[in-house]
Amino acid sequence: MVIRVTVWNEFRHEKLNSKVAEIYPQGMHEAIAAYLRRDPDLRVSTATLDEPEHGLTEQRINETDVLLWWAHIAHDEVREEIVERVYRRVLAGMGLIVLHSGHFSRIFKKLMGTSCDLKWREANDREILWVTRPGHPIVQGIDDHFILAGEEMYGEFFDIPEPQETILISSFSGGEVFRSGCTFTRGAGRIFYFRPGHETYPTYHDPNVLRIIHNAVHWAAPMTPPKPVAFGKREAGWLD
Amino acid sequence: MVIRVTVWNEFRHEKLNSKVAEIYPQGMHEAIAAYLRRDPDLRVSTATLDEPEHGLTEQRINETDVLLWWAHIAHDEVREEIVERVYRRVLAGMGLIVLHSGHFSRIFKKLMGTSCDLKWREANDREILWVTRPGHPIVQGIDDHFILAGEEMYGEFFDIPEPQETILISSFSGGEVFRSGCTFTRGAGRIFYFRPGHETYPTYHDPNVLRIIHNAVHWAAPMTPPKPVAFGKREAGWLD
Amino acid sequence: MVIRVTVWNEFRHEKLNSKVAEIYPQGMHEAIAAYLRRDPDLRVSTATLDEPEHGLTEQRINETDVLLWWAHIAHDEVREEIVERVYRRVLAGMGLIVLHSGHFSRIFKKLMGTSCDLKWREANDREILWVTRPGHPIVQGIDDHFILAGEEMYGEFFDIPEPQETILISSFSGGEVFRSGCTFTRGAGRIFYFRPGHETYPTYHDPNVLRIIHNAVHWAAPMTPPKPVAFGKREAGWLD
Amino acid sequence: MVIRVTVWNEFRHEKLNSKVAEIYPQGMHEAIAAYLRRDPDLRVSTATLDEPEHGLTEQRINETDVLLWWAHIAHDEVREEIVERVYRRVLAGMGLIVLHSGHFSRIFKKLMGTSCDLKWREANDREILWVTRPGHPIVQGIDDHFILAGEEMYGEFFDIPEPQETILISSFSGGEVFRSGCTFTRGAGRIFYFRPGHETYPTYHDPNVLRIIHNAVHWAAPMTPPKPVAFGKREAGWLD
Repeated sequence: MVIRVTVWNEFRHEKLNSKVAEIYPQGMHEAIAAYLRRDPDLRVSTATLDEPEHGLTEQRINETDVLLWWAHIAHDEVREEIVERVYRRVLAGMGLIVLHSGHFSRIFKKLMGTSCDLKWREANDREILWVTRPGHPIVQGIDDHFILAGEEMYGEFFDIPEPQETILISSFSGGEVFRSGCTFTRGAGRIFYFRPGHETYPTYHDPNVLRIIHNAVHWAAPMTPPKPVAFGKREAGWLD
Repeated sequence: MVIRVTVWNEFRHEKLNSKVAEIYPQGMHEAIAAYLRRDPDLRVSTATLDEPEHGLTEQRINETDVLLWWAHIAHDEVREEIVERVYRRVLAGMGLIVLHSGHFSRIFKKLMGTSCDLKWREANDREILWVTRPGHPIVQGIDDHFILAGEEMYGEFFDIPEPQETILISSFSGGEVFRSGCTFTRGAGRIFYFRPGHETYPTYHDPNVLRIIHNAVHWAAPMTPPKPVAFGKREAGWLD
Repeated sequence: MVIRVTVWNEFRHEKLNSKVAEIYPQGMHEAIAAYLRRDPDLRVSTATLDEPEHGLTEQRINETDVLLWWAHIAHDEVREEIVERVYRRVLAGMGLIVLHSGHFSRIFKKLMGTSCDLKWREANDREILWVTRPGHPIVQGIDDHFILAGEEMYGEFFDIPEPQETILISSFSGGEVFRSGCTFTRGAGRIFYFRPGHETYPTYHDPNVLRIIHNAVHWAAPMTPPKPVAFGKREAGWLD
Repeated sequence: MVIRVTVWNEFRHEKLNSKVAEIYPQGMHEAIAAYLRRDPDLRVSTATLDEPEHGLTEQRINETDVLLWWAHIAHDEVREEIVERVYRRVLAGMGLIVLHSGHFSRIFKKLMGTSCDLKWREANDREILWVTRPGHPIVQGIDDHFILAGEEMYGEFFDIPEPQETILISSFSGGEVFRSGCTFTRGAGRIFYFRPGHETYPTYHDPNVLRIIHNAVHWAAPMTPPKPVAFGKREAGWLD
């Protein structure tokens, strides 16, 4: 079955900061999408904040099996009705992959039920990501750890509910730690949070990071298209 | 340490339906509060929807360690700012016990991140509640099961995230099942959802139901008063 | 990738009890294997207790990606070294599907770390299985519930660790409930426990039961063949 | 209610290694027990490997509410029947706190169902322990992190089942990470694994480490003495 993937990006830093534009000339979404398009089982498109309806029309969402979400400085500009639209689709079975600073997006906070707050520092920390669930589909092909030479630091406490599975834990030069790869289920939808990806580093060109995102797309995809679940009044039970 | 408990009730059915008023002349909140007041380690008060600020002023919430929540027909009348106030207090460590139709309250849906929908039927079903985590503090003193002669039916799928612990599962006359006792953690706060308690049945006079609510108050109480958790920018790491 | 499946069965009841033999002339393992063989992506074989090494030689286990296990009256006859062999292979990534009375098998108890005890009754109970995690790959194609006209009753408390996911909950004519579909991870291996399947009922001819077993085989299969995980002394850290 | 605590220690290193004896002249068990004895709600005793029945007679175990376990070089000398005795008591509700190299003890591996293997290095690493579940009873009074100046390194992958709660995560000088505080439930018993405590460091004199152990004793204690759970044949259901 073909998996329909939409890579959503705020797409602001790339226009405002020449350093970011140099690393991602087409935007971070295109760096990720280009990698995913090499897989013939994926049909990949992109969407960004400043498109009409943020590029996430009712039809577009209804034709998306897995949505990726990167955002940072404009969480408040995402309209409530679009958040609601994405939310309902996740509960019906769409996969959602939330990247890096997307931890503070409306959609992620709404699905977690917590503040999603954390500690942070921009100081070119070295990040080591350790695999804490070998054999999980999301870390197929990944060694027992890998290293990013420079990244923003995120530190615990990360205010999320206890994850269903903690797949990756990072350490940073400063001695901090962070649960960097976490899975959750909401309704029929699977969610993966993946930490790395600060805009001023070439993280989305790193082969391990791209491999994990690719694996996660396959893991999060519903087996059949998302559809409503049975709820409501039940007239007759067995003995009625 | 004394635990400060606030029993919150919508308190509408009791005024509108004489059958309910007969069972709970002072309201369901007073039936529960009266039982809890027998414990000298608890300082118990009540609050209801139609009081100013729904009886949940900033001061009242700040002086509550465990909040109980019963509501049904007026979820939409609970003001957003009060929901937000309760929410922030839960993340800071306040315990929350959500009763029966409180599953559809704004505060519970906000904390779960799901629709919290379910199947239901009002047909005087017999409910059997089975203990699925013996030894848990919430079911201390409860046998391996207990029976409620008549109750509203709630049936699966109950759209909640996978609970941290599933402590009780019910069956109904119609053959339906339901996860009736579930725990969750959000931020520093502990949450217990407890199913029984339809307003037209004397459920909150049942000794097993009251015992479980009493146990849950002790389980959900923070050891020290709720307080903010450390987040934000971290200037210096170990090696800086 | 082809998934190599081994269906293991105690295969004693079928020889001892003409009623069982009538329902499963070739044994329960062959009923299940015949269904799975319709899927060209599976390479299906069987093994039984009374074969040399219980049919589970080192080579056979090393060439198995997903193992199914049905047993009842001869758990104690399974040799410790074979249990150990299966155990090590599960930790390395082999999927394991434990059926019905396999709850008391040595391998399941060893992987759970609990007694795996439960309540039971043979009285031709009607069993209703309710889906409690719609969208999960294991219940693809299954409605919100399905019914088995006659089965042995299993009741809570089922002494297992809190499952990673509770996918199905059953009710029985007697009003009992049971967590009938549960997932676990041990090492790199995925485990699914699936309750129905008493030998005197035609349960493994039921299309819903077979569909769930089929789905579970795909869910439990490792993406690459099981292999050892990195452990042991680590000489040099980053800063050494 | 008084909690009856038994601190069990292998007690070999202290006799074989003068450096260890200098840090713990009475043994590690006595260092921990001395701290716990300051709490009048605890009745604390100790037991060691070389006592008859390892100091864990049937009576002693039956009079223990919470057992602490430190061991390292003599796991294989612990007799199977004693392991079985402790195991049954845990399932019946006794709390168990497993310390440091106790990860490889027979009792811990039996309860986990996994290899409990890990990476390690003895090189005087600095360990920083970060709180990942603020508000949990086990970390009451602990800041958002604390530091041990020198410790043995333990690194992921730590082969345990997904913990019920991950309360502490460590980083080490070498950049490794480890889930250092993890909770599990087995039967009616609560289990806490706590990483620090290599014998050549004064870890059990550290106030944060001792506070966490003290908190964990209260958390793991059953509310009523452990007792058997109802299992077995159930003759009559509701409709029989």
